[in-house]
Amino acid sequence: MNVSIFPVTGIGEVQPGDDLPALLVEALRPLSPGDGDVLVVTQKVVSKAEGAIATAASEADYRAVVEREAAAVLRRRGPMVITVTKHGFVCANAGVDRSNVPQGQVVLLPTNPDRSAHSIRLRVEREFGIAIAVIVTDTFGRAWRQGLVDVAIGVSGMLPILDLRGTPDMNGRLLEVTEVAIADELAAAAELVVGKASGIPAALIKGVNYPRGDGRATDLIRPPATDLFR
Amino acid sequence: MNVSIFPVTGIGEVQPGDDLPALLVEALRPLSPGDGDVLVVTQKVVSKAEGAIATAASEADYRAVVEREAAAVLRRRGPMVITVTKHGFVCANAGVDRSNVPQGQVVLLPTNPDRSAHSIRLRVEREFGIAIAVIVTDTFGRAWRQGLVDVAIGVSGMLPILDLRGTPDMNGRLLEVTEVAIADELAAAAELVVGKASGIPAALIKGVNYPRGDGRATDLIRPPATDLFR
Repeated sequence: MNVSIFPVTGIGEVQPGDDLPALLVEALRPLSPGDGDVLVVTQKVVSKAEGAIATAASEADYRAVVEREAAAVLRRRGPMVITVTKHGFVCANAGVDRSNVPQGQVVLLPTNPDRSAHSIRLRVEREFGIAIAVIVTDTFGRAWRQGLVDVAIGVSGMLPILDLRGTPDMNGRLLEVTEVAIADELAAAAELVVGKASGIPAALIKGVNYPRGDGRATDLIRPPATDLFR
Repeated sequence: MNVSIFPVTGIGEVQPGDDLPALLVEALRPLSPGDGDVLVVTQKVVSKAEGAIATAASEADYRAVVEREAAAVLRRRGPMVITVTKHGFVCANAGVDRSNVPQGQVVLLPTNPDRSAHSIRLRVEREFGIAIAVIVTDTFGRAWRQGLVDVAIGVSGMLPILDLRGTPDMNGRLLEVTEVAIADELAAAAELVVGKASGIPAALIKGVNYPRGDGRATDLIRPPATDLFR
């Protein structure tokens, strides 16, 4: 079966206090969401609706917000800082972003992106009478590889990791690749239609087999004790 | 516009010496490949067709192949080794894989995955009279995050990084996210249909805007001198 990824259009600029789940429900109607679909929502609209915004008039203000938002710092080089966020994610600048916000403001990560995903999921499920998964995404750099990709920072209605342990391969041997980060693959796939400069804040993905369940995006964080690259 | 990802089915078991581009051409016919499509091919069938296979009857043999294939070792813990491949990619076990191969054999990475992608692209383009991009993928772990994702290890007909430097955001400021690893996002998206136990070795992606050009997957390698996590 093929997978289809649809941009969710027509949401416009989101302001603090906006009812994002309601905005998403209206924007989803033309796409006829169905059981098992995956709704991917970019972090920026979630943060804006939740008021996760700070003022930062200068570069120094921005740096201060980054330091305040970071739970720990892994590396520094010049103005760049690789941080651990309060949720435990590793990313640049504690996820504090200056793009697509009014001058003098910066957007923080949502306090609890799993909970944000959960609220959106419940509203969409109730409205359309279906069961879906919701992923909140942000754009992160990686060790070793150039360029950024979207990853999951919040999930609801799914397990973010597809566990294939015990699955036989085509020759009847056990698979070596046993844990697929399917929520991150869905996040990356959605980025193909959301785009950074397009103003499209969400995507609906149809046709994916994913493990349903009560997962958390923090399940995607490698435990620091077994992480060789901290 | 929506993005669609189609599994490329009917290829069956690939053997050393098989004409993989010809097999792909035949398998692609029912999907009506069009101009601008992206063909994603998993590394294992590329390696098998190219004879990038070694014998390894025991765990010790396997470990010896890994050490021979690795250009450098970044970390060791127990039997696990994080390596730099001869191409410059950072991954576990130099990409040497024991799944989906006959007992006693292991599959190595292709010698030059960009060249493999190029050969496939030329054949498909000639056969269908279209211009496409081809990505060869493998499944890699990441620092900091649990689970594996598919990434690009070979590309042809595209630039693997979408460079948005100088692009204004919705408020007219310059975007902070300037380099999107679009080849890796396409690789991750394709993994949603290829699956590890399904025997589907390729996917055709339609509807994506990607930068055409003469890129190399090695453009995705962060230069070691600026990589803070080696």
